[in-house]
Amino acid sequence: MQALFRHPSLPLRATRLFSSHITTARTRPTFAPQLPSPHRLYSDNRGVVQTLDDEMGKDKDDKKGGNFNLKVPKGTRDWDGDDSALRDSIFSKATEVFKRHGAINLDTPVFELREILAGKYGEDSKLIYDLADQGGELCSLRYDLTVPLARYLAMNPSIQTFRRYQIAKVYRRDQPAMTKGRMREFYQCDIDIAGTYDPMIPDAEILRIVNEVFEGLGWEKYTIKINHRKILDGIFKVAGVPEPLIRSISSAVDKLDKLPWEEVKKEMIEKGLEEKVADTIGEYVKYKGQGDVLELIKNDEKLYACEDIKAGVQDMELLFTYLKAFDSMDRISFDLSLARGLDYYTGVIYEVVTEGSAPPKNAAKGSEAAVGVGSVAAGGRYDGLVGMFSGKPIPCVGISFGVDRIISVVKSQKKVKAKAKDIDVFVMAMGGKGFDGMLPERMQVARKLWDAGLKTEFSYKVKPKFQAQFKAADTAKIPLAVILGEDEHKEGKVKIKKLGNRDENDPEKDGVMVRYEDMVEEIKKRLKDLADDMGGLKIN
Amino acid sequence: MQALFRHPSLPLRATRLFSSHITTARTRPTFAPQLPSPHRLYSDNRGVVQTLDDEMGKDKDDKKGGNFNLKVPKGTRDWDGDDSALRDSIFSKATEVFKRHGAINLDTPVFELREILAGKYGEDSKLIYDLADQGGELCSLRYDLTVPLARYLAMNPSIQTFRRYQIAKVYRRDQPAMTKGRMREFYQCDIDIAGTYDPMIPDAEILRIVNEVFEGLGWEKYTIKINHRKILDGIFKVAGVPEPLIRSISSAVDKLDKLPWEEVKKEMIEKGLEEKVADTIGEYVKYKGQGDVLELIKNDEKLYACEDIKAGVQDMELLFTYLKAFDSMDRISFDLSLARGLDYYTGVIYEVVTEGSAPPKNAAKGSEAAVGVGSVAAGGRYDGLVGMFSGKPIPCVGISFGVDRIISVVKSQKKVKAKAKDIDVFVMAMGGKGFDGMLPERMQVARKLWDAGLKTEFSYKVKPKFQAQFKAADTAKIPLAVILGEDEHKEGKVKIKKLGNRDENDPEKDGVMVRYEDMVEEIKKRLKDLADDMGGLKIN
Repeated sequence: MQALFRHPSLPLRATRLFSSHITTARTRPTFAPQLPSPHRLYSDNRGVVQTLDDEMGKDKDDKKGGNFNLKVPKGTRDWDGDDSALRDSIFSKATEVFKRHGAINLDTPVFELREILAGKYGEDSKLIYDLADQGGELCSLRYDLTVPLARYLAMNPSIQTFRRYQIAKVYRRDQPAMTKGRMREFYQCDIDIAGTYDPMIPDAEILRIVNEVFEGLGWEKYTIKINHRKILDGIFKVAGVPEPLIRSISSAVDKLDKLPWEEVKKEMIEKGLEEKVADTIGEYVKYKGQGDVLELIKNDEKLYACEDIKAGVQDMELLFTYLKAFDSMDRISFDLSLARGLDYYTGVIYEVVTEGSAPPKNAAKGSEAAVGVGSVAAGGRYDGLVGMFSGKPIPCVGISFGVDRIISVVKSQKKVKAKAKDIDVFVMAMGGKGFDGMLPERMQVARKLWDAGLKTEFSYKVKPKFQAQFKAADTAKIPLAVILGEDEHKEGKVKIKKLGNRDENDPEKDGVMVRYEDMVEEIKKRLKDLADDMGGLKIN
Repeated sequence: MQALFRHPSLPLRATRLFSSHITTARTRPTFAPQLPSPHRLYSDNRGVVQTLDDEMGKDKDDKKGGNFNLKVPKGTRDWDGDDSALRDSIFSKATEVFKRHGAINLDTPVFELREILAGKYGEDSKLIYDLADQGGELCSLRYDLTVPLARYLAMNPSIQTFRRYQIAKVYRRDQPAMTKGRMREFYQCDIDIAGTYDPMIPDAEILRIVNEVFEGLGWEKYTIKINHRKILDGIFKVAGVPEPLIRSISSAVDKLDKLPWEEVKKEMIEKGLEEKVADTIGEYVKYKGQGDVLELIKNDEKLYACEDIKAGVQDMELLFTYLKAFDSMDRISFDLSLARGLDYYTGVIYEVVTEGSAPPKNAAKGSEAAVGVGSVAAGGRYDGLVGMFSGKPIPCVGISFGVDRIISVVKSQKKVKAKAKDIDVFVMAMGGKGFDGMLPERMQVARKLWDAGLKTEFSYKVKPKFQAQFKAADTAKIPLAVILGEDEHKEGKVKIKKLGNRDENDPEKDGVMVRYEDMVEEIKKRLKDLADDMGGLKIN
């Protein structure tokens, strides 16, 4: 399977980096164990990159390249080649959507004071990377982008409303493993809306943003699973779960997307729940749909007598009204089994799932398009976090997009192409005996093309062979050549030729001579024609 | 002076962050002490951000906000607001130029194995941030982007030619201080060309890229100071500097842009140089110009007898030929006093300097437009670094742009505007008695505008007051309003109104009614008119 993805121009090690990344993403349909973060991103979502050494199970510290251990640290990777270009194109699509919604970019330091992170991640605090104590403040690498946002808001009390996005790497000292899909350094791409507003309006806008990001990437198949913490916790209470067990039982329910009910039930009983309580929960968390689920709850006297559930239902009714106004209901699956891991969440919670092939758009309504494939985005409302820093709570709602998983899906769709290098024109020269290579002339032409904004290269040889120039342009799949000849140059002319042109009937098969002053315009015209011919969605 | 830069919407702490940044950049004309990196970036170039605590000389660890020490770690900052938008616009301009020249993006991990960084930075290795030993590999935060590039090339031996850019933060445990202009976390923006090519061609392209980046930012005043290590070291040899003193004397010469000759001479003598040797050096390093400096060297029998100098002169003659072909000679000042700190450099070295006001472009020819203002970019050729990892050298040449200093200069020019938030349209509603706020209708309109790619906001209140909506749009300087009214809505119409319109004669002074189906087109037309009216250079 890995050979399918082998990148021709990279050595074995690099090839394995890419291919294992994809392989894992496509073969690991399950969710990872709970990671408590508001936008806890699913450890199977980070893109797995293992070096050959990991695959072999060798102790990498023993392997030396020359005098050095020539590798990146465990659980990290270099982003290069087409992967890097694809990642950039996804970032730029997301950024475009975020800006359209008035979000501004916040960039926080990669490390925070250790005490800022302390007590925010429960038992997973052991996964935090600490900086060495070299004198001065004790610091740690950020674990997510949400705690830094809360720290920023608390530090700047005059900012009472804030719509921010941040695309940056976060750090977790998880055991990286291909089979578990965990990286230690991975990207998060977050948007959050902070501030006290009329209920559910920002929540609805976050879900609208989800639509725009995925539709911007050309996705047709994805489902937004949604639930409300007040409803879920209310169900636990009504079913008879003792208060101290609620979060722990919630975390068992969260596994229903990858474990059969019997196993989840077993875990609940092991955690101390009576069997009949577990069975009651089992009945409720089966509910999936949209407004019909709300009706079911409202018609259940026991449930609707619970004040928390009533409040949650009111929120959800309002949310659905707003989502209809935003034309954003199609993707919604109100799913009472969605729990998510973190204590932070105080209101609506959601996860976006997708798969390679799914029922058509209409069939996805109320049903699940993509159970078991893994979430590509996740988030919810967390109204208490800022208050942990400043004592003055600022309600927040947000989402985190899982960049690595999205990249895997985009790659498997093969719809979106992003080339690491995307040169428009190769400037070459040819001549007979005594030919000097025309390097300064090629440079002058390249400069003119750069000035016109055209992506241009030429051979770095003083006297390149003509065939070598052609081969270089061909290998790099450059669409056009500008060919200089000594005689033509004297006449103020140059030849433009389409490369890789297999059309025998094309009148320009052998290229076309143009005057220097018309060169830029003639090239732009041909590039436009070529782009129109290619069609398809290309982001770069 | 700081009050001048006070940002109205930020609290005191944040305000000081911005203002001290700018103040320092504009009032610190000197270069920082040597930092040995191939693109050693001038510690005064990193944008100084000190918290109020630093300024007051207080021990920050004593200051607590609530239960937390509410601050970012020493020497780091949050990038927010217009600063963040301006930074993004500079990154995107640089990226556009880099891609035009066929460079691909490489993103390396923020930390490397400690042994990769060891022995690369001389005595400044003490400034490296180490990660704590939490079991497993020992790692350190990257100190620059050049050593990671060399590690990458050594790890991927099939890559023999590589043109890459990288824009990322690097980490140095310097003592951050406003007066010295040092940050501990700061951006580098690098482009490097690796590979064995005919001499001086990639070197010339790097300098052409410098032109395109700064001209892309609308800069008219900057000078590229250039020298050649072989010529400089040759001069030292000819003057009689003992071999072991050469690097140390070179570092003294590097201070000539901020110290008078007498002090540099004193330092040389203290370092063990004879006075007459120092005086000989003093004669040579005065030379500044372009081809005329090459002539001076060639006509100096003693100098030109030195093989190193001869080789350096040949390189420079070739470089000047290529720079002429690239139309890139105007900014060049061949300056024999340019030394740069690092041992790495093996060929051409350069630094870009600028100032707030300088002689016109022609006057800059061969002269110095901007002595003493500080470099905004720096780099050179380093042919040995990759070989330190792999044993197989790959020659490299590159440059690093100083993002913080560039931002300061751009801000002082006030030519380029980048707004953190740049909303096109505010959707509002008004009505009489019993008015319900029309929230779903406002949402529907917003959704239509988002679908059309328009940056749109609306009030998050169910029943907002009309004046409050106007005020919100006005505060955010949003140019257009779409105004919904109950009667108009029933007729399928909506009002478009230019905000902040002071033109009493404008026929659209009170807005214009349009049908819903024409709304997007009518808005786009008006936005285009407004953009045309504004004119000027706007990057976002």
